[in-house]
Amino acid sequence: MRIGIIGAGNMGATLGRIWATKGHEVFFSFSKNPSKLKELASSVSGARSGSPSEAAQFGEVVMLATQWGTTQDAVKAAGDLKGKILIECTNPLTPDFSSLAVGGNTSGSEEIAKRAKGAKVVKAFNTLGAQNLTNLRYGALNADTFVCGDDAEAKAIAVQLGKDLGFDVVDCGPLSSARYIEGLGMLWIKLAYALGQGPNIAFKLLKR
Amino acid sequence: MRIGIIGAGNMGATLGRIWATKGHEVFFSFSKNPSKLKELASSVSGARSGSPSEAAQFGEVVMLATQWGTTQDAVKAAGDLKGKILIECTNPLTPDFSSLAVGGNTSGSEEIAKRAKGAKVVKAFNTLGAQNLTNLRYGALNADTFVCGDDAEAKAIAVQLGKDLGFDVVDCGPLSSARYIEGLGMLWIKLAYALGQGPNIAFKLLKR
Repeated sequence: MRIGIIGAGNMGATLGRIWATKGHEVFFSFSKNPSKLKELASSVSGARSGSPSEAAQFGEVVMLATQWGTTQDAVKAAGDLKGKILIECTNPLTPDFSSLAVGGNTSGSEEIAKRAKGAKVVKAFNTLGAQNLTNLRYGALNADTFVCGDDAEAKAIAVQLGKDLGFDVVDCGPLSSARYIEGLGMLWIKLAYALGQGPNIAFKLLKR
Repeated sequence: MRIGIIGAGNMGATLGRIWATKGHEVFFSFSKNPSKLKELASSVSGARSGSPSEAAQFGEVVMLATQWGTTQDAVKAAGDLKGKILIECTNPLTPDFSSLAVGGNTSGSEEIAKRAKGAKVVKAFNTLGAQNLTNLRYGALNADTFVCGDDAEAKAIAVQLGKDLGFDVVDCGPLSSARYIEGLGMLWIKLAYALGQGPNIAFKLLKR
């Protein structure tokens, strides 16, 4: 397959390099540094490089792998994308990488904390269904629960109560991380029900 | 530990039931059906039941396990929560369970799709770092990539390109699911860098 890659940072370069070894033809574009772009292309078997619009014309698939701040310029520079398959792996982050620049700036947890005045609120146990709680084993692994909160003692207690249920526990930092943990809950619901996987699924953070 | 549970649906009931077997004292509250609440308490060793404010007073920990539509009433009914440890597992869903009621109603992908007019946009490959792409094995498991998009053919191609990289691929449905997949990307970044886990981590959907 011919793949036009827009964005020549770590993601774009690595994706192109691997796909080339799988027999795909890749075309790199959109680097701040034109000589780096040529160097990248010459280091990858059969790869070419050029402008984003050339990449878009070249590709049966266009892979957009840009930092969020440059994404709008990149899409514009790609020109006509009508009918194109555009795969994108952007993370729409604020410039300090601390949160999503697109979407909401609150969560259920944060709204609860506003109303439960003075309480030490912890988000936990929302990323799978109640029917899973009685058996959190998946083969050799435990399902994870993702917890966050602004009070260390409260979070430590939630961690222990999660372990009592049989979870492995992932500490996701401050209560504002509930924005993302609630997204994971939503994704579980979609996968289990709307997309037919059924409720015997659970998220796990793999480590090595 | 004394745990006051607000919300006696599947989550609240199951959490209380399990924690009771681990030696915690539980107090159930907040059911539409008072006789069901008593029945639940009598079926769990040492459990009591009553009002949300009694549950909150009883608990060293208050566990809030309500549907989002009743959460505000539940918090109000709990009364004074100052200094309380409040663990909550709500998913702030719209009444039709199709999306989050709190937070954003767009995503980077959807914004890209608006600008890349006519393109068949697929979200993929955003939930780990480029350095992981060259080795997606975690013990016996492959890392997952989570893809979504509104065009079936484009998504099928993204799935194949993901497999070429060594991913297992989870189809998360329409492009609007990027709201949650981008949250997962944000969570990966937080865990890897802000929270010190380092980049050798990856999300996996466990199944059985």
